[in-house]
Amino acid sequence: MKAWAVIMAGGSGTRFWPESRKNFAKQYLSLFGRKTLLEQTFQRIIRTVPASRVIVFTSQAKANYAAKLLGIPCSQVIGEPVGRNTAPCAVWAASLILKKDPSAVIGIFPSDHYIKDKKAFTKALRVGYTQADQTGMPVTLGIKPGYPHTGYGYLKMGQKKVLCQGVPVFHLQQFCEKPKLSLAKKYVRSGKYLWNAGIFIWRADCLLETARRYLPAVFNPVVKIASGDVPASRIKNVFQKVPAISIDYGLMEKLSGQILTIPVSMGWNDAGNWAMLTKLLPMDPQGNVSLGKTVLVESSGNVIKSKDRLITAIGLKDHVVVDAGDAILVCPMHETESIRKIVAELEKRKLNHFL
Amino acid sequence: MKAWAVIMAGGSGTRFWPESRKNFAKQYLSLFGRKTLLEQTFQRIIRTVPASRVIVFTSQAKANYAAKLLGIPCSQVIGEPVGRNTAPCAVWAASLILKKDPSAVIGIFPSDHYIKDKKAFTKALRVGYTQADQTGMPVTLGIKPGYPHTGYGYLKMGQKKVLCQGVPVFHLQQFCEKPKLSLAKKYVRSGKYLWNAGIFIWRADCLLETARRYLPAVFNPVVKIASGDVPASRIKNVFQKVPAISIDYGLMEKLSGQILTIPVSMGWNDAGNWAMLTKLLPMDPQGNVSLGKTVLVESSGNVIKSKDRLITAIGLKDHVVVDAGDAILVCPMHETESIRKIVAELEKRKLNHFL
Repeated sequence: MKAWAVIMAGGSGTRFWPESRKNFAKQYLSLFGRKTLLEQTFQRIIRTVPASRVIVFTSQAKANYAAKLLGIPCSQVIGEPVGRNTAPCAVWAASLILKKDPSAVIGIFPSDHYIKDKKAFTKALRVGYTQADQTGMPVTLGIKPGYPHTGYGYLKMGQKKVLCQGVPVFHLQQFCEKPKLSLAKKYVRSGKYLWNAGIFIWRADCLLETARRYLPAVFNPVVKIASGDVPASRIKNVFQKVPAISIDYGLMEKLSGQILTIPVSMGWNDAGNWAMLTKLLPMDPQGNVSLGKTVLVESSGNVIKSKDRLITAIGLKDHVVVDAGDAILVCPMHETESIRKIVAELEKRKLNHFL
Repeated sequence: MKAWAVIMAGGSGTRFWPESRKNFAKQYLSLFGRKTLLEQTFQRIIRTVPASRVIVFTSQAKANYAAKLLGIPCSQVIGEPVGRNTAPCAVWAASLILKKDPSAVIGIFPSDHYIKDKKAFTKALRVGYTQADQTGMPVTLGIKPGYPHTGYGYLKMGQKKVLCQGVPVFHLQQFCEKPKLSLAKKYVRSGKYLWNAGIFIWRADCLLETARRYLPAVFNPVVKIASGDVPASRIKNVFQKVPAISIDYGLMEKLSGQILTIPVSMGWNDAGNWAMLTKLLPMDPQGNVSLGKTVLVESSGNVIKSKDRLITAIGLKDHVVVDAGDAILVCPMHETESIRKIVAELEKRKLNHFL
């Protein structure tokens, strides 16, 4: 068995506008430290998988940029002509990899999450590769939930299967949609549910076979693209007709329980919006997270991010202020999930250079 | 009698920071329309007083700038070496003017207020010059109060003296300090009180005689400076030892009731802070005053002022956001009076280029 990795770095973020833009999604931002989330993801993975066996999927516009950023050959970066969610990318990747390595086991990773404890991640990941290889089953890494979050999908653990290298591995009983708060509370209280972080490990041959059998609308065109049977000029046309569907709902759920999950505590955070920075970055004694040049007087609970200008506040409570150079965002903390409405308004007013 | 005017344009504003700076006080800002408040003041006055008889007092650093801005000779702009409030400037001006024109009547005007109704101002001003000339008494223009403001001094009207050109002129009974709210309410209810807008008209000879008799600590050194009896190199040294005192408390109050006041409604506003803009500028249907490039979604009651970048907000209520190019201010509307605390903090941190 050889471990391979696929990093999903497509999509265009709006939730970190004005820093994230159509062609500059969240994974390309340096929200924590100097490195981008994509670089951090890559660095985490190559503790386990050689850099030469990492494939990155990103938008076509960003493919060269991503290769340069990570210091890998362009041949390892696939530019998606359009975003079709994760299952088509997984099939594309598996098809490419399988040709080079029939024994490949592929880890599939989002590129825009934050993981504090790299050691815990690496340990669970290695067990994941081993289990996926030995069983042929897909393995998910599930995050032990810290609180009843209603914005994540959950993984319901079934029976314990095995203890592997000291790490318990469970059967996955069920994928659960984002719950309401009352249900999320039950989930967390029961101790049987994990957050679905979108990290999967699966043998390339098994992944492809599942797609062939259960998801032909994805399998047929995508394998043709991956095999070079579609002329370059027609790839976009073919790919955009492929159903946009995720790996978990499109492929794994078809396996009626033949899935494994590894619970892990690794300081994971999806870094989903500006408000999340209050959980991830150091705060001053007044509970402000401030980045760049700021002067805050009698202000508390804010996220303030300056690019190169001074941002000042007096008496400001629980707000987000972000200066991205050409555009400034100001909103109450509880409105950070609504930033897409600003992006929608910019689209409506055809202020395209801010998108 | 010839009408003269003195515009007081000294001081360094902090309440409109980050637009106003140490060397760029409020009167040099274009808060309403394209012209600065100083230009607007000048334009209002030269409806009554020829431009050649207008003297401007401003900081030394701004003297040339002010002359150029108003299109008047530098000889009509006096650069104050330091700010000593209005009485020393008034004495300086009266001393200069009296030498040229023994019959001069001087109007003294702040440069940083907003007056909507120029006709009403002009009418009251002309009556003021006539009354000051005929009686030798100082005349104040008092603003009919719209509501019980606690940030202004009040003028208590005494008996009516005369109806002049259809305008009633009253004896001034008392200058009143900024009142508490309960007292301010009584003032407004009684109908006998006016806001003190700092606009005075007085014969130059009477003004000087009052200063000579009651304020020798100002009169003696300042008349020497105005007469050219102090070498240029020593002017600052001499002037900064002069007591800083206002015309109303330093000179007029000494006259025990021999003062006149003209009540006037002219859409006056001291434009004292960013929050005031909500009373003076047009609002969108959500009650936002926005200047420059802005996109406001589900936001209301804000003052948003952009210089050349886009300012966006979602769900923002009753805040002030001002981008001055190198610095951005964000604060709740009710904190606009506290902006000086930011300036103090900048001073403390020695961030002098933002002062």
